[in-house]
Amino acid sequence: MTPGQTETVAVLAGGVGAARFLRGLLRVRRPTDVTAIVNVGDDFTLHGLNISPDLDTVTYTLASVINPETGWGRAGESWRVLTELGRLGGQDWFQLGDLDLALHLYRTQRRSEGASLSQVTGEIAASFGLELTLLPVSDDQIQTRITPAEPTGAAEIDFQDYFVAQRHGISIRAVRFAGIDTARPAPGVIEALWGSAVVVVAPSNPFVSIGPVVDVPGVREVLAQRRHSVVAVSPIVGGASIKGPAGAMMTELGHEASAVGVARLYAEFAGTLVIDDADRDLAPAVSDAGMSPVVADTIMSSPERAAALARTTLEAVSGS
Amino acid sequence: MTPGQTETVAVLAGGVGAARFLRGLLRVRRPTDVTAIVNVGDDFTLHGLNISPDLDTVTYTLASVINPETGWGRAGESWRVLTELGRLGGQDWFQLGDLDLALHLYRTQRRSEGASLSQVTGEIAASFGLELTLLPVSDDQIQTRITPAEPTGAAEIDFQDYFVAQRHGISIRAVRFAGIDTARPAPGVIEALWGSAVVVVAPSNPFVSIGPVVDVPGVREVLAQRRHSVVAVSPIVGGASIKGPAGAMMTELGHEASAVGVARLYAEFAGTLVIDDADRDLAPAVSDAGMSPVVADTIMSSPERAAALARTTLEAVSGS
Repeated sequence: MTPGQTETVAVLAGGVGAARFLRGLLRVRRPTDVTAIVNVGDDFTLHGLNISPDLDTVTYTLASVINPETGWGRAGESWRVLTELGRLGGQDWFQLGDLDLALHLYRTQRRSEGASLSQVTGEIAASFGLELTLLPVSDDQIQTRITPAEPTGAAEIDFQDYFVAQRHGISIRAVRFAGIDTARPAPGVIEALWGSAVVVVAPSNPFVSIGPVVDVPGVREVLAQRRHSVVAVSPIVGGASIKGPAGAMMTELGHEASAVGVARLYAEFAGTLVIDDADRDLAPAVSDAGMSPVVADTIMSSPERAAALARTTLEAVSGS
Repeated sequence: MTPGQTETVAVLAGGVGAARFLRGLLRVRRPTDVTAIVNVGDDFTLHGLNISPDLDTVTYTLASVINPETGWGRAGESWRVLTELGRLGGQDWFQLGDLDLALHLYRTQRRSEGASLSQVTGEIAASFGLELTLLPVSDDQIQTRITPAEPTGAAEIDFQDYFVAQRHGISIRAVRFAGIDTARPAPGVIEALWGSAVVVVAPSNPFVSIGPVVDVPGVREVLAQRRHSVVAVSPIVGGASIKGPAGAMMTELGHEASAVGVARLYAEFAGTLVIDDADRDLAPAVSDAGMSPVVADTIMSSPERAAALARTTLEAVSGS
C-alpha cells in the first residue's frame, strides 16, 4: 500500500449524521483525500425544482453555512418566498428558505441544460470552496418509497411525505428504492470504493440512507470484497437513533433496534463496527454478528468530538 | 343586444401597456364584465420554473402590487434568492425577485400536478382578489422566436434572450411563433370574443404581444367577423412606441412605424383605431388604411388618464 493510499478515505453518507462525521474527518484528513458518496433516495421534485436533501446537508455542513440548530438548511436563512407561496395557497410543507432555494434553482437549471447530478454537485461544492470529492451515489433516479403499516394501511408514499409531511410519526411496513435495479454508480464511485485505503459507513439511517447507497448495483459487491477495510459507525446508541427514525424503523421492519441489529445488517460488507461507550456490553454480540466491535464516544456534539470519532474510526481498520 | 352584453368587454393584452389599460378599464366597467386574453408567446422556462411574464404583469398591475417604477415585478421586492444564485455562478440575467419567485413556484407545481395554464392563472388571479376573467390565449405552448438581422446574422433566438438578455438592442429580421399552428384557444377565449359587446386590442406591441394572440387559430377569424365592434389602441405615438421595441420592430420588419402602420396591420380584424392627439394629422391615412380613426389622449401616465382612455375607447364602438 502506498503512502498516498494509506490516507484516502471514502465515506458512504446520508444527511445530518454523515455530514457531522465528515466535518470531523476533514480535521484529521486532507480534503483532497476524502470522497463522500451520498444517498440520493430522498431526492425529489417540488415546485419544479430538483431537491437533493442529503447532498445539500453535507455541502452546507462542510461549508460551515449550515443552520446549527436544525442540522439542515442555511444559517441566517430567510423565508420571503415560502411565506408568499403560502399566501398564494401553494405547498409550503417542505421548508425551502430563500438561500436554499437559490441552490435548487441552480441545480435544476444545470440539469435542464443536460448536466448530470454528479457534475452539478461538483460545481456546487466548488462554489462553496469545498475540496473533498462529493459524489451522489448515482446520476440515475432512485426513489425511496415507504409503505405505511396498518391501520394507515394504504399504498406506498414518497419518502418526503413520510419524513417531512408526516414527520416520520407513522409506523411503516416496508421500504423500497424504486429505480435502483437499473441505477448505475455515478462516475468515480466504484473507483473511490476500490481505490481508497479505508471505506467508512457513516452513522446514518441503515435503511433509508445507507440502504439506497449499498443497493446500487456494484456497490455492495465491491465492499464485500474488501470488507476488512470497511468500517461502519453505528447510528443506534442505547437502543435508539441519535436523530431521526432509524431506531423505530429497525423495530418496525423486524430488526433489533441496537448496535447488534446494525451489525447484522452490515456484516456482509463491513468488517468493523464502531459502537458507543453506552453500548460497551453489546461488543460480544456485535462480534457474534460477524463484525469486529470498537468502542468509542460516538456522540458528535462538537466538531472536536466528531474529529476524535473519525480518528478512532480510521484507526480501527488502518494497517488491517 | 341585452343590457348585460352591452357592458361586457374582452381585451387582447400583452404586458405593461395592456395592464395599464386594463387598470383604467376596471374603473369604468365592473370587473366581472371584463375578460383579458393575454399573450403567452413570451412564456419560458428558467431554473425549471414556468414563467409567464405578460400574465404576471397584468396580475400584479391589477392587484396593485406592481413595481410602479419598472412597470413589471412586485413593489417592495427583495432579491435574496437571485443574489445567492449569482454567487453560486447561476444564471441571473432574468430578474426574478423573491415575491415573484413564489408565483412561479406555485404555477410550476400546479402545472406538474396536471393543472392547465388557464386553471392556474384563474387560481392566481383569485388569490390576488381579482374579479375579472384572466385567460392565457392558449393552454398550449407558443414560443416567440426572433431572427436577428445581419451582421448578428445567425440563427433564431428565444424572445427573452432578445428582450431581456440583449435588452432589445439588436435589429431583427423576422418574428415567428413556434407551435402556434397547432395551438388551441384556451377554454373561454372564443366564447369571450363572440360574447362580449366590445373587443379591445390593447396598446401592446403589434408583433410580439398582439401577434401571438390573434394568430392562434380561430381568434383572427372571429374578430374579422365582428370587426365593427373591435377597437384597437395604437401603441405607436409620434412614430415611436411608448415603451419597448414596437416602433423599431415595425421599421425593421418593413412596416411604417406610425399609427398608420398599425392600422394596416389591424384593419383586417378591427374596425376602429384610437390614435393619440399627437397623431391627429394621421387620421385620414388611418381611414385610408381601412380603420375608423378616433383621436384621444393615449398616454396612460396615471390610472385616471387610463380610465379616460378606456371610456373613449369603449364609446368609439358602442352602439355600432
